[in-house]
Amino acid sequence: MFVKIVGTGRYLPERVETSEELAPRLNVTADWIISHTGILRRHITDLPMAEMAARAARQALGDGPPPDLIINAGSIPQQLVPDSSVFIQQALGFSGIPSFTINATCLSFPVALNNAAGLIHAGAYRRVLVVSSEIGSRGRDFNESESASLFGDGAGAAVIEATPEGESSELLGFRMSTWPEGSSLTEVRGGGTRLHPQDPTTKPEDNLFHMNGPAVYKMALRRLPSVFKRVFADCGVNPQDLQAIVPHQASGPALSAGPRFGLDPERVISRVQEEGNCVAASIPMALAYAHQEGRITRGGLVLLCGTGAGLSTLAMLLRW
Amino acid sequence: MFVKIVGTGRYLPERVETSEELAPRLNVTADWIISHTGILRRHITDLPMAEMAARAARQALGDGPPPDLIINAGSIPQQLVPDSSVFIQQALGFSGIPSFTINATCLSFPVALNNAAGLIHAGAYRRVLVVSSEIGSRGRDFNESESASLFGDGAGAAVIEATPEGESSELLGFRMSTWPEGSSLTEVRGGGTRLHPQDPTTKPEDNLFHMNGPAVYKMALRRLPSVFKRVFADCGVNPQDLQAIVPHQASGPALSAGPRFGLDPERVISRVQEEGNCVAASIPMALAYAHQEGRITRGGLVLLCGTGAGLSTLAMLLRW
Repeated sequence: MFVKIVGTGRYLPERVETSEELAPRLNVTADWIISHTGILRRHITDLPMAEMAARAARQALGDGPPPDLIINAGSIPQQLVPDSSVFIQQALGFSGIPSFTINATCLSFPVALNNAAGLIHAGAYRRVLVVSSEIGSRGRDFNESESASLFGDGAGAAVIEATPEGESSELLGFRMSTWPEGSSLTEVRGGGTRLHPQDPTTKPEDNLFHMNGPAVYKMALRRLPSVFKRVFADCGVNPQDLQAIVPHQASGPALSAGPRFGLDPERVISRVQEEGNCVAASIPMALAYAHQEGRITRGGLVLLCGTGAGLSTLAMLLRW
Repeated sequence: MFVKIVGTGRYLPERVETSEELAPRLNVTADWIISHTGILRRHITDLPMAEMAARAARQALGDGPPPDLIINAGSIPQQLVPDSSVFIQQALGFSGIPSFTINATCLSFPVALNNAAGLIHAGAYRRVLVVSSEIGSRGRDFNESESASLFGDGAGAAVIEATPEGESSELLGFRMSTWPEGSSLTEVRGGGTRLHPQDPTTKPEDNLFHMNGPAVYKMALRRLPSVFKRVFADCGVNPQDLQAIVPHQASGPALSAGPRFGLDPERVISRVQEEGNCVAASIPMALAYAHQEGRITRGGLVLLCGTGAGLSTLAMLLRW
């Protein structure tokens, strides 16, 4: 599909929480956090999710016209109804623009980008804002040291349009698989109809994030190769042709796994030490960072990839 | 976009709750419920959301092959993480199929159908299952008689493919607008980062559904004409050419508003008396009903329409 990312944006809250500060709340040492997760610090927001989203989105929109579609690509909403895209549109000061949410947990952004590309390719929309904003810090269970060490807050955005005549920007390939065998490995069990907040059997920890990190890591190593292999075969591209690899910023160990998949660690965009795991916002925040730092340039091959709760695996290849 | 709905399905729970049974819990009479909402009875599920979804989906899939993409088109999840599409895939006994959620509250189904059409049109997928399953009864606030009278449970599904050579099935037009001015008219304020279940300021009623029905109705009457007008103009179709009109089953009064928009009430598919408002499942349930009853036939022009929390307005025109 001949689509082009015409702008990227990111918002990182000012307030920093170092692993030294966090460690006593988890009854572990800072060294334990750093050795297990690779995360030195994360940022904690004082702003609502929609306001963070609006700040990243404004940067992505730049001086251009308003979008004709807004997709919130995210996992944890601001509130259950209406969907968060409405509050993001409100925070941007827009009205009347169609908007909705796509949720594939940590993979929401590339999934939404693929949907946006399909709609633009079909002529349904011309300029689509895809924005992810997550307050992962809010769902931390301080009794589960490893997962509670991971999360930070932030927002990332991109604006996508049809590729102008004579340019080469393209969505080259997209592969995703979802394996419900992994559904209990990464969970917030509450917040829906199963363990409703009003249900007397719902325990406080049901409303917080739980993850079996080692099991997710093991499953990811086993399941990821096939999406990589298929997307490279679809596109006739070799891993060494990539300009930049933008993975979900799951954890330090996950970010170091590139060589296991034949990916050059030098080209992997890693923000996890400084920003932690920002759930669905991690990929667009890392993408915007890489773009703004000049590590992605027009014509370069960019791989977005990672795993999400589900367990889902994804690899998406763009010619920037 | 040349796409064809090749199968529809619906699931309605066995257990019925009449307005006579419900009235005492709301401190009103059955006549009050019926005169305000037009709803005689609704169905209440004993099954999880994903199991209802799977039953509707199996009917829609029929004897055909598994889908290559599953989209959960819904508002209230089974649990917050992973997204509900994972549990639907699990209940269907599938594994490895990409899946995610599209949430535009009550309009999730037509929005997901439009996204699916874009992806099929682009050649990204060939057979997409779109399924909506909602347990609206779980979010009722019995202190708010009008909104608590509305909701019923159920699931609806459709399978969409590219139109075979020589056939005329087509997605002719799609128009949607989202107006954040209406964001506080229809809400579940809790369940997200704003009023987290663990936040001591979150009140029990924050986790339940609230609606200013008269204000929504008034806003809908003012905002809907423009999406109707634009979709008919886009497609060169007149309202009298329609074979069936499948609105969101918001309430009895909403279902009777057709003539205000130039829509023939005889062609409006109304299930609200018998099934109540099933949130995002209402449109696909009514669509499957109309299809199964022979009120929609190949080549017929079908309008999907309605409003959702946001406030969003939508009109989508299909040649079946």
